[in-house]
Amino acid sequence: MRPFTPPVRTLLGPGPSDVHPRVLEAMSRPTIGHLDPRFVAMMDEVKELLQYAFRTRNALTLPVSAPGSAGMEACFTNLVEPGETVIVCQNGVFGGRMKENVERCGGTAVIVQDDWGTAVDPAKVEAALAGHPEAKIVAFVHAETSTGAQSDAQRIAALAHARGALVIADTVTSLGGTPVEVDAWGLDAVYSGTQKCLSCAPGLSPVTFGERAVHKIRNRRTKVQSWFLDLNLIMGYWGSGQRRAYHHTAPVNALYGLHEALLILHEEGIENAWARHRRHHVALRAGLEAMGLRLVVAEPDRLPQLNAVAIPDGVEDAAVRTRLLDELDLEIGAGLGDLAGRIWRIGLMGRSSRPQNILYCLAALEAVLGGTGTVRTGVAVAAAERALAA
Amino acid sequence: MRPFTPPVRTLLGPGPSDVHPRVLEAMSRPTIGHLDPRFVAMMDEVKELLQYAFRTRNALTLPVSAPGSAGMEACFTNLVEPGETVIVCQNGVFGGRMKENVERCGGTAVIVQDDWGTAVDPAKVEAALAGHPEAKIVAFVHAETSTGAQSDAQRIAALAHARGALVIADTVTSLGGTPVEVDAWGLDAVYSGTQKCLSCAPGLSPVTFGERAVHKIRNRRTKVQSWFLDLNLIMGYWGSGQRRAYHHTAPVNALYGLHEALLILHEEGIENAWARHRRHHVALRAGLEAMGLRLVVAEPDRLPQLNAVAIPDGVEDAAVRTRLLDELDLEIGAGLGDLAGRIWRIGLMGRSSRPQNILYCLAALEAVLGGTGTVRTGVAVAAAERALAA
Repeated sequence: MRPFTPPVRTLLGPGPSDVHPRVLEAMSRPTIGHLDPRFVAMMDEVKELLQYAFRTRNALTLPVSAPGSAGMEACFTNLVEPGETVIVCQNGVFGGRMKENVERCGGTAVIVQDDWGTAVDPAKVEAALAGHPEAKIVAFVHAETSTGAQSDAQRIAALAHARGALVIADTVTSLGGTPVEVDAWGLDAVYSGTQKCLSCAPGLSPVTFGERAVHKIRNRRTKVQSWFLDLNLIMGYWGSGQRRAYHHTAPVNALYGLHEALLILHEEGIENAWARHRRHHVALRAGLEAMGLRLVVAEPDRLPQLNAVAIPDGVEDAAVRTRLLDELDLEIGAGLGDLAGRIWRIGLMGRSSRPQNILYCLAALEAVLGGTGTVRTGVAVAAAERALAA
Repeated sequence: MRPFTPPVRTLLGPGPSDVHPRVLEAMSRPTIGHLDPRFVAMMDEVKELLQYAFRTRNALTLPVSAPGSAGMEACFTNLVEPGETVIVCQNGVFGGRMKENVERCGGTAVIVQDDWGTAVDPAKVEAALAGHPEAKIVAFVHAETSTGAQSDAQRIAALAHARGALVIADTVTSLGGTPVEVDAWGLDAVYSGTQKCLSCAPGLSPVTFGERAVHKIRNRRTKVQSWFLDLNLIMGYWGSGQRRAYHHTAPVNALYGLHEALLILHEEGIENAWARHRRHHVALRAGLEAMGLRLVVAEPDRLPQLNAVAIPDGVEDAAVRTRLLDELDLEIGAGLGDLAGRIWRIGLMGRSSRPQNILYCLAALEAVLGGTGTVRTGVAVAAAERALAA
């Protein structure tokens, strides 16, 4: 066996996205102790930068030491007590995972179902709340990674609050790519991932909890069933002040990387990052539509950073993705669940959202699909260039 | 805010230990997708290298995508069902954490108590098994990181098996430093960490499960309460073959680092690594004893890679550690729990276990303690050198 030399890919799938060389380099800096005062000072900066990214002043804002799925679980396992009812909005894979989480916490999930590829319908949420006055929480996915559809987080939160329920919002794919206004929208518990629009390596899950959520966590009748994710304990390590209680050994080098990635976002300015994702989406879409490819999600619900594209009839999904990867070092994503074999997911997230990647992706799709007679050739790159110049 | 530049420390605490430059560099290689065939091939190598480190042929051998505490939780949450009795051996901090885990899984913990700084007494384990024939599991810490005491894993496993119980063993501090013979000793479920004797960055938890444990997990009456740690789901991603089911996004760059760290262990040869930890412990001990410092753990139970040293009367714990860190960039560990303020923990783990670190540590302790009149000066380095030359 020998050291592993990864190929240099262009990552235009649903995540991980391309990681900035500054972030890669940051992760290779010398490891120091997780209780070292210098490390603790860096943790404070990470918290401040996460507050910037989440647009919040929540004190309980930190990266969970594990991937986004663990961030999701941190929200549910801390907020759901056995016997409680949770309204779960399901319009893709990750809503289904929320239901699993509720049930494993001993809660009852009431499902609000919407078609895959559409946004959550607020009218259905309102009806579910009216039908289940005992519901304590409404959980929804702001940006469904499995379909590329975005829901109206502000509206859903307002409906929940009007009935005295908290909200849990999945912003794994939206944070840093489209507006996530934790304080302005009153989102109570929010989790995200590092490997999407923050363009950091996968492995951490930023979370933030508002006062109502913290109050509920502090006043639980039962212990949180996960020791590792128990925020009552984690607050002792990620709390403020120089005195930190050891809870678990923090992933030191991964946090160096997150610090650097958040700094890059701060340098660009988050509004500028949102505008960039929007602008590059428009260019990619122009190119895809010029080729005759169809975006699956309707315009108002469409996430700019994750484009679900219908696979043309007669084209073999896996063969195309394998050629893109093997011959062109280009990764695009497959469909999940019901959409497997029917869509591709083309991400322009974080550092991956650059003009050269748009042109490269369109040229690569033309190269691979051109021979199948299913797309128009010779027009996509020019269409994208016109959109970029506009 | 600016990029974070960590100081270059010498890490002789209870972990993280010094990370090899090859491992740091590996973590900065380009990120690729967690379902990329090249990444999947690397995962297979990581599994094989972990089997080498654990001395096992267990198919279910993998790194949990989170720190050691999550590896502990993966063992308990998968193996303990509500209502079950678990015998927990407690001779330090981490036994107490095991008890927490059992109770949060709905189990009943029967505690076998031994003094901090001593090994688990097998006679007490035998008595607990005799008194609790309903016990399904015996859980113990092989190498107590809070005290530096090692217990007889083989003997405890044999006692448990004689009564039809499984064992869960914490090898966070032993793996790679002292023998951990998973197959020869019949350990059913074992977890470890990356940041101790494997000298990798913190953030992952190697685990391995034998056939009896896998059988129990596959035949649970209830769902595992953690979705993120449910091995029935994780097996689909870390199983064999090219077809991997997406469960969560793996921490790609952290796994590059673990691959490299395990490769370094394999190149050295694990028996050589054990011998090196032993040899360097003897040299450090010679120096410490020449200074008049006392090791807390009695010889037969003493872990070579983690030395608990009694703080001399009249010496202020925190002031010494702060001077070592601030003036000499040297980290040693504080005591935990009942031992806080009473001991230092000096680790010689993984890459930290090198002759230069022994001499540096002794010289630094002399420099800082010399003025207090509590230690003999001018003799420690020579004593360690004699031991190294022997």
